[in-house]
Parts: sequence; C-alpha cells; structure tokens
Amino acid sequence: MLDAAPGPIPLGAEGVAAAIDACLNAMQTCTSCADSSLGEKGIAELRRCIALELECADVCGVTARTLSRPLQSDHYVVHRLLQAGVRVCASCAEECARHAEHHRHCAICAKACRACERACAELLETEAFEELQKLAGG
Amino acid sequence: MLDAAPGPIPLGAEGVAAAIDACLNAMQTCTSCADSSLGEKGIAELRRCIALELECADVCGVTARTLSRPLQSDHYVVHRLLQAGVRVCASCAEECARHAEHHRHCAICAKACRACERACAELLETEAFEELQKLAGG
Amino acid sequence: MLDAAPGPIPLGAEGVAAAIDACLNAMQTCTSCADSSLGEKGIAELRRCIALELECADVCGVTARTLSRPLQSDHYVVHRLLQAGVRVCASCAEECARHAEHHRHCAICAKACRACERACAELLETEAFEELQKLAGG
Amino acid sequence: MLDAAPGPIPLGAEGVAAAIDACLNAMQTCTSCADSSLGEKGIAELRRCIALELECADVCGVTARTLSRPLQSDHYVVHRLLQAGVRVCASCAEECARHAEHHRHCAICAKACRACERACAELLETEAFEELQKLAGG
Repeated sequence: MLDAAPGPIPLGAEGVAAAIDACLNAMQTCTSCADSSLGEKGIAELRRCIALELECADVCGVTARTLSRPLQSDHYVVHRLLQAGVRVCASCAEECARHAEHHRHCAICAKACRACERACAELLETEAFEELQKLAGG
Repeated sequence: MLDAAPGPIPLGAEGVAAAIDACLNAMQTCTSCADSSLGEKGIAELRRCIALELECADVCGVTARTLSRPLQSDHYVVHRLLQAGVRVCASCAEECARHAEHHRHCAICAKACRACERACAELLETEAFEELQKLAGG
Repeated sequence: MLDAAPGPIPLGAEGVAAAIDACLNAMQTCTSCADSSLGEKGIAELRRCIALELECADVCGVTARTLSRPLQSDHYVVHRLLQAGVRVCASCAEECARHAEHHRHCAICAKACRACERACAELLETEAFEELQKLAGG
Repeated sequence: MLDAAPGPIPLGAEGVAAAIDACLNAMQTCTSCADSSLGEKGIAELRRCIALELECADVCGVTARTLSRPLQSDHYVVHRLLQAGVRVCASCAEECARHAEHHRHCAICAKACRACERACAELLETEAFEELQKLAGG
C-alpha cells in the first residue's frame, strides 16, 4: 500500500510496512490478552499485566496510524512515538513472560510485543533519525 | 490468539479472527489512502473519498478492538458496530473504485474495504445474531 | 466549533455538541475508572466493571469522532454507533453503580455513563432518524 | 475523577486534568476542522492543514487516554507522548493560523492546539520529568 503513495517514504517502505504490521498485531494481541486476563481466577496477579497491555494497545495503535501517513510525516513526532512504543512493548513483553507458563494468552502476547519492540527499534536506527537519536541519548 | 481465551467465543473463533484481520487491514489501508489522496493534484475530486476513509478507519479500528474482547461481549453492541462497519466499508469501497483507474492507492483501498465488508457481513449472518437481525430489519 | 462548518448539521448543532462532550467525558472517565479498579484490593469483584469500561471508552471515543465529522455523515452509520453507545453506557452505568458505595471512582463513572446514555438517546430521537428507528424496532 | 484513584498522581492531579481536557478538546477540534476543510472550495490550500490535524487528533487522543491511566504510568512513555503532542500541536496551530482569516474553523482549531501545546509543555516541566528532560536535550 505504501508503494502507491504519491511521495517518498523517508524511513523506507519495507521497514515502515513491517513496523505497521507489528504494531497492529501487538495492539490486537494486547487487547485480547487483557480481556482474557480479566476472566482468569488469578486476576489479582495479572493487574500490572492488564494495565501495561491497555497502554501498549493504545500506543501501538496510534503508531501504526502515524506510520501509515507518510505525507506530512514529522520525524520528531514519529521518533517520539517509536520510542514510546519500544518502551511500552518491552515492559509489556517482560510482564507477560512472567505469566507465560500459566496462561497461553500471555505467552502469545509476550511474543507479539517483542516482535513489535524489534520492528520499532529497527526503524529508530534508520539514518533519517540519526540526528534525533544523538539528541535523545537514544 | 482467541483460542487462548478462558471463555467461549460465541460468534466462532475463525470468523471473528477473519473479521479482526479484515478490520485492521481496512483501517490501515484507509488511513494510508487518505494520506496519499491529500497529496494528489486532483484533491478536490477526492474529498468525499478522504472523508469516507477517515470514518471507515475509525469504525473498523473500534470494531477490531471490540471483536478482540469476547469476555463481556454484548451481542447488541457487536451487532451495531458490525452493521456500521458493513455500511461504511461499502460506501468507501464504492467511492474508491471510482478513482481506482487514476490512483493505485484507491484501487488497493477499494479491495480492502470490500474484503472487510464481506467479513463483517458474514459474522452478522451467524446464528448468534438471528434474533437481532430480525428486529433490525436485517 | 460545529457552527463553523461549511455545511449543515442535520442532527442539530446543539444536540450533537452535547453528545460529543458527553462521549468524550465518558471515554475519559471509563479509562480512569478501569485504571483505578486495576489498583483495588477487590479487583476480582470489579472484572466485569473493567471489561465494560474498556468497551465503553472505545465506543464513546469513536462516536465522538464520528459526530465531529458532519460533512459525509451517513445517518445509518451514526445511528448504529449511537445505539451501540446507548447500550454500552447503560450496561457500564449499571455495573459501576453496584460498586459506587465502595469506590468513589465507580460512582463518578456511573454518572458520566448515564449522562452519555441520555445525550446519545436524545440524538436518536431526532427527526432525522425517524425512519431508521422504525426499521430498527426502536 | 483523578482524585478518586487509589494511588498517587506523580505529575500532579491538577496539571494532568488540565492536560487531559486540553488534549480531548484538541482531538475534537482537529477532527472537526479537518472535516470542514474537506468541504471547502479552497481544499488544495488546506491539504497540509488537514494532514496535520489528523495526526494531531490521534496523538492527542492517545495522550489523553495515557494521562487518564496513572496506575502503571511509565514516566518515559508519558514523556515521549507529551513531546510528540507539543510538537504536533505547535505545527498544527501554526498551519491553521495561516488560514484563520478565511476559515473560522481554522481560527478555532489554532486556538485549541495552542492551548494543548501549553498544557502538555507545562506537564513536561514537572519535577518528575527533570531527569528525562536533561537526557532528551529538553
């Protein structure tokens, strides 16, 4: 789809497409895992997991939409969203992994968050962000 | 992911998973196509296209999230969202198709909207909705 | 803001503005109440409450955005979203009211959901929807 | 509503509440202004305006939701979202101001974006962010 845009994709169409897919998958998986966790007997142990998943779903959703709009893409805005995405995906993956043995939905969610963390981190290493990364101590 | 939920999926895991994927794809494609359209010389002819795509992206996004939360799933709410989704996808596909020859992003978007319209319409034909369909004049 | 639109507001600017405000307030209050509930000792009793609030926040958010876009407003789509909003706000208000004595955030949330239910229900009674209401069995 | 949360609000309930309100108002106003702009004769001059408003609406929406969830609030994530919000609100306000004389909806939108930029910038100056601000080069 991005190849059909009338302008260039400064971050590279392939990497952007991969990050969009990973973000949408993380959004969906986090939403499902939070819903499943709300139905578990051991809900009290899953409260941090649920809270992180709600945050992760929202951040990944907006990042997917932003990356789908290259036309007026502001590198600074994209950069900050990707940084937020990498952080919340990492936290969420770590917390889900702690429950992965007992809940298969947490195991699946941990995997989706790790994949999204990687895809966003790879975009952040793009040349286009070099200057911003230096400033951000990234 | 839905197979790992602690409770049943009244609408059927397979159909729900297909509808979620179709909704996320339509959301992404509509967002991208609107962005591309904003960059086209003939933007004045694309204004209805853009407006429908923004609406379609939002409705498909919330439908994907709702379908990802089967735990407290209220058939009435899901039914109304699916109806809204079928309608806005159909309108969006029709309008995009009118520009498909001139803009490849519109051709791709028309296809994604048609696929989402079908996936949502199929869910609406599920037995679980039979009663609601009659009341709603189907 | 709606008064500054280049076209007419078929549902009436005043009622639409009231519904948008009520939807945004319900979205925010539900998001906050779900977060607070995740921090309560008695989280196991609040699981239905949290699940309904997440759904309510999403539906109200998309309804607020749709009502803010009168240009290509499709009565059928708006009608279905308002119906979904009335239903999920009513369910959420009812569930929150059951916990209102023990949790002030639930009392506040019940009130916000009731207000949103009313604002959306009032829009549904607009003349513009008369035909659709008949078909939908009210 | 935030006062009813079971835990502390590290960024201060008053400032957070002000930022949430400003974000929701900017989200709504940007969505409406984009819709109105799509209906204007001079749409070709408004394309950058519309594109920025769509991005601004999404970023402000997710920031409002994140700020409404203090429970597992990760300072780093909030910080990056607020930075993205300040930037996109500033760009959007600047572009809208250029069209304010001809379109009242752009004048209203410029004002809402400036207010949101200020509210988010004030939160960023909170003591809680001191360390992060230094690292990020402010």
